[in-house]
Amino acid sequence: MPDTNITDPDFRVTTGPLPASRKVHVAGERFPDIRVSMREIDLSPSANEPPVRVYDPSGPYTDPAIRTDIRLGLPELRRSWVTARGDVEAYDGREVKPEDNGLREGQESPVPLFDRAARKPLRAKAGANVSQLHYARKGIITPEMEYVAIRENLGRQRLAEQAARDGEDFGASIPDYVTPEFVRDEIARGRAIIPNNINHPETEPMIIGRNFLVKINANIGNSAVTSSVADEVDKLVWAIRWGADTVMDLSTGRNIHTIREWIIRNSPVPIGTVPIYQALEKVNGKAEDLTWELFRDTLIEQAEQGVDYFTIHAGVRLAYIPLTAKRVTGIVSRGGSIMAKWCLAHHKENFLYTHFEEICEIMKAYDIAFSLGDGLRPGSIADANDAAQFAELDTLGELTQIAWKHDVQVMIEGPGHVPMHKIKANMDKQLKVCGEAPFYTLGPLTTDIAPGYDHITSGIGAAMIGWFGTSMLCYVTPKEHLGLPDRDDVKVGVITYKLAAHAADLAKGHPGAQERDDALSRARFEFRWRDQFNLSLDPETAEKYHDQTLPAEGAKLAHFCSMCGPKFCSMKITQEVRDYAAAQEGMAAMSAAFKEKGGQVYLSDRPVPEDHH
Amino acid sequence: MPDTNITDPDFRVTTGPLPASRKVHVAGERFPDIRVSMREIDLSPSANEPPVRVYDPSGPYTDPAIRTDIRLGLPELRRSWVTARGDVEAYDGREVKPEDNGLREGQESPVPLFDRAARKPLRAKAGANVSQLHYARKGIITPEMEYVAIRENLGRQRLAEQAARDGEDFGASIPDYVTPEFVRDEIARGRAIIPNNINHPETEPMIIGRNFLVKINANIGNSAVTSSVADEVDKLVWAIRWGADTVMDLSTGRNIHTIREWIIRNSPVPIGTVPIYQALEKVNGKAEDLTWELFRDTLIEQAEQGVDYFTIHAGVRLAYIPLTAKRVTGIVSRGGSIMAKWCLAHHKENFLYTHFEEICEIMKAYDIAFSLGDGLRPGSIADANDAAQFAELDTLGELTQIAWKHDVQVMIEGPGHVPMHKIKANMDKQLKVCGEAPFYTLGPLTTDIAPGYDHITSGIGAAMIGWFGTSMLCYVTPKEHLGLPDRDDVKVGVITYKLAAHAADLAKGHPGAQERDDALSRARFEFRWRDQFNLSLDPETAEKYHDQTLPAEGAKLAHFCSMCGPKFCSMKITQEVRDYAAAQEGMAAMSAAFKEKGGQVYLSDRPVPEDHH
Repeated sequence: MPDTNITDPDFRVTTGPLPASRKVHVAGERFPDIRVSMREIDLSPSANEPPVRVYDPSGPYTDPAIRTDIRLGLPELRRSWVTARGDVEAYDGREVKPEDNGLREGQESPVPLFDRAARKPLRAKAGANVSQLHYARKGIITPEMEYVAIRENLGRQRLAEQAARDGEDFGASIPDYVTPEFVRDEIARGRAIIPNNINHPETEPMIIGRNFLVKINANIGNSAVTSSVADEVDKLVWAIRWGADTVMDLSTGRNIHTIREWIIRNSPVPIGTVPIYQALEKVNGKAEDLTWELFRDTLIEQAEQGVDYFTIHAGVRLAYIPLTAKRVTGIVSRGGSIMAKWCLAHHKENFLYTHFEEICEIMKAYDIAFSLGDGLRPGSIADANDAAQFAELDTLGELTQIAWKHDVQVMIEGPGHVPMHKIKANMDKQLKVCGEAPFYTLGPLTTDIAPGYDHITSGIGAAMIGWFGTSMLCYVTPKEHLGLPDRDDVKVGVITYKLAAHAADLAKGHPGAQERDDALSRARFEFRWRDQFNLSLDPETAEKYHDQTLPAEGAKLAHFCSMCGPKFCSMKITQEVRDYAAAQEGMAAMSAAFKEKGGQVYLSDRPVPEDHH
Repeated sequence: MPDTNITDPDFRVTTGPLPASRKVHVAGERFPDIRVSMREIDLSPSANEPPVRVYDPSGPYTDPAIRTDIRLGLPELRRSWVTARGDVEAYDGREVKPEDNGLREGQESPVPLFDRAARKPLRAKAGANVSQLHYARKGIITPEMEYVAIRENLGRQRLAEQAARDGEDFGASIPDYVTPEFVRDEIARGRAIIPNNINHPETEPMIIGRNFLVKINANIGNSAVTSSVADEVDKLVWAIRWGADTVMDLSTGRNIHTIREWIIRNSPVPIGTVPIYQALEKVNGKAEDLTWELFRDTLIEQAEQGVDYFTIHAGVRLAYIPLTAKRVTGIVSRGGSIMAKWCLAHHKENFLYTHFEEICEIMKAYDIAFSLGDGLRPGSIADANDAAQFAELDTLGELTQIAWKHDVQVMIEGPGHVPMHKIKANMDKQLKVCGEAPFYTLGPLTTDIAPGYDHITSGIGAAMIGWFGTSMLCYVTPKEHLGLPDRDDVKVGVITYKLAAHAADLAKGHPGAQERDDALSRARFEFRWRDQFNLSLDPETAEKYHDQTLPAEGAKLAHFCSMCGPKFCSMKITQEVRDYAAAQEGMAAMSAAFKEKGGQVYLSDRPVPEDHH
């Protein structure tokens, strides 16, 4: 395999395929030039099974055929799709100001600039609307829509014919097979979104909606003292390597504009931000100094860079703030508390709420999706499903309708900390008041007592709410509530959420979701250790754990494992069982020839127990 | 604090309290000499809150007032309770044979013997039945019953009066306050068990049943080459330190009789075993050589040592074995496959099934509880809830009735690998066919694709099935399917299952369960970092994670954390919100004086949104 990594350590990020994995590309039918990326995991020859195709957000970094160089950015996959529609114009764009990077006038930054070269920002022509929702409602199927249709199917056409659907989807409408028409319909009714700013043509389109595979988001943020843009970009690359479908850049402090540029130019997944964080930096952390004009300018700044979705805390209304006064944990959302502080300081309604339609005008000029923030989400079990939380959710429902009036794509953020018995009420209420707009939840955490393990307490809630209908799950790392996640924490968080999302897909009865489980279980049962590792979400850890007990390479070929050892193995008995059952069936077939209809055949579904006395 | 640990490293185990924790003892009312152990976590003075009482299975090892020495064993707490009933007799007991330890006649073992000194085994006098179920049905409240009643309440009498009950218990009958009478009733109807062999008087009684706190079990096993009994005992001590309520000794190979003696003599929690494992050792791993006589002798051997519950795979009936032939993962239970092999080799009904009533006779002579094994549990998502699994469960229901006829305590083992949407059917069927006998499940794992993270895939299923009514959750460690767990894996497995069990208690609406969550959340919100660590399930890890970002001791007093830093903190805004709300309430109170009844008061539960246009 060619070395696809560049050698300059200042610009080197993690590349290379996962074990036994290859990139495959599936061409479009309606748009023959689109090539949808997937990953195929090859099994050992003894398996005598086809490779297993899996969803793959990792982009070109895991493709040995592509040499990536973060100085150049990723290929602009979607640029021609965007320009071909004839409704955008390039323009000079807003000038980058020192305060965008938290710098004083004339202050130098050690962080190198990404060379935008001749790249000018695009925006909708006057009067145009470039959102996928707008196209969908006009009946237009875009290349983005066909791309996600193919991507969701994972080549599973054959599976739809095979297996009976099994699952409980709580009223979802998951099709056997995803067509571009189905994608368009789901987007048109607001039930799914494709976040993809026209200024982020590097994305491989992905869809978020309850009738599609459950997605996960990973949060990253810049280091307080950044010296290497490679380190910052590698946070993104690392998160998508393990399966993050979108990444939110929650950076604060210095150089955030510059680092965001590096991240977007090198991201094959949608990037989300919370623009109020940067706006707050520009007023030196004094929430009361925020203004609509400064916020609007920040939206334009990020829109031109290519941010794909904005968290907007427009539901934190002045009247709801007192509802949090008697909470155990008050307001825990950072954006929510910024807006609450602003509202209280001015005794005025939230300017994100009063200027919401103007925000919509910006969103539709770039096709940025709303992620309507839950600034009043509960921060503890005690505060779950309270008046403040649900008052805000009602408002998010109103705002959804306004966004939809503008043909702007919307998803809704959800909690937080919620005990298991109160999770479904969140989903049911969100579906009802937000018209089935995609729900995007943080966990929820199902207890408060396990700091250090909150990826797990929240993974429980995430799997459940994903099953009930949540479209995207925002990960939580083991460091939640305690500190900043490092590389290992990010990986553990992503893998935990991948397994939670997959558990949800299985329970919803998503067609073909069980294919990977079955392939892995067959590998496990047949002692194909390499296949078991390679099919797992984290092959490195699986192999490492195996090798801690049985390090010899030969043990990976052994037909036993460390649990029972070579002397006795439960799995070895299966062949004897199969031989026995075959013999019984043979006898039964013979005797059946002599029996009347209605005679008892051995091996019925439920044998009649003998009297055991 | 005195050094309560002994200095000889050959006999040294982990001792000492968890941070900020003290042992407290609550005396009985009916039996004033019983002293029920609990743990109290002290909060910092600035909290101005009482200590938080938590359930504590760790025994004397975390009590600085008690000097433990594994050579002497733990105090025989229950011995006088057992003998006072006048229905037991001491006898010489079975002679220990070399094959009990996997040794040849005359072969020496390097493992020292525990000095049983004058300890003779006890058994029921002829015709007597010493099970708690037998006493309960006769209307007798034993000290064990009062002990568990006090233990379950955790001094929460006051809480029952405070808070409205909140939760969904799916038809459970959880009382506001547990009385000894309630315990007796629950045991009498088979809905709960107190596993405590009369030959294991060292136990602090605990109860397993759906109307009590959800319990967890940890599995341990001997090392292939054992040199230190302290290492073996410390596996137990370590597991209970972090919260294991019972421990199963799944040892195989040499010296298992001797090591089991060390474990039981030093265990304050019930010990479970799978006797067929040892029986198989005695026939050199050849399942077909097993006999009822040899198995019976093994039961007596372990009964005299004091094993509290036996996993018995009596539901693996000959007729069910062919039902597994077409499974993806056949028979994955070790005990199940041993019995399947025996049945096939002899083409005979399972001898555990045919001799079940004779087993009951042994159980009631020592008060050993059945843990009826699910030898045909699914080993993959594909095999969940299939005909083999449910046929066996029906048989376990029949066997439950037989055990109850003998007044023998019973719980039922459950899966395994089950996708989320099929979990509840397991619980519902178990409740129905097994007459509400306690369910004891292994997870279940909700996907097959995450080896290395199966504590999490199974923690999801465990929390859910615990909520639905499962009484005890058998832990799964990160090494499941891959290798043998080390000390860190055991801890991660126990903590994961503690949080899953707690999530279940919260969702069931267990009275007082939320007390610890609320105390921790208040600590979190008030930046009492030490209190947050100390209230968590794993204080060491919480502090370590915090210190990775902010190592300075002063940061633990700081009113900010590493997520937002000192400049802006969402939690600091709360005081402003509270001041504001108080001002609003003050105004509202004033204006209310002038208003008619029915006039609108600010701060209603759900403010009417203003029109936002």
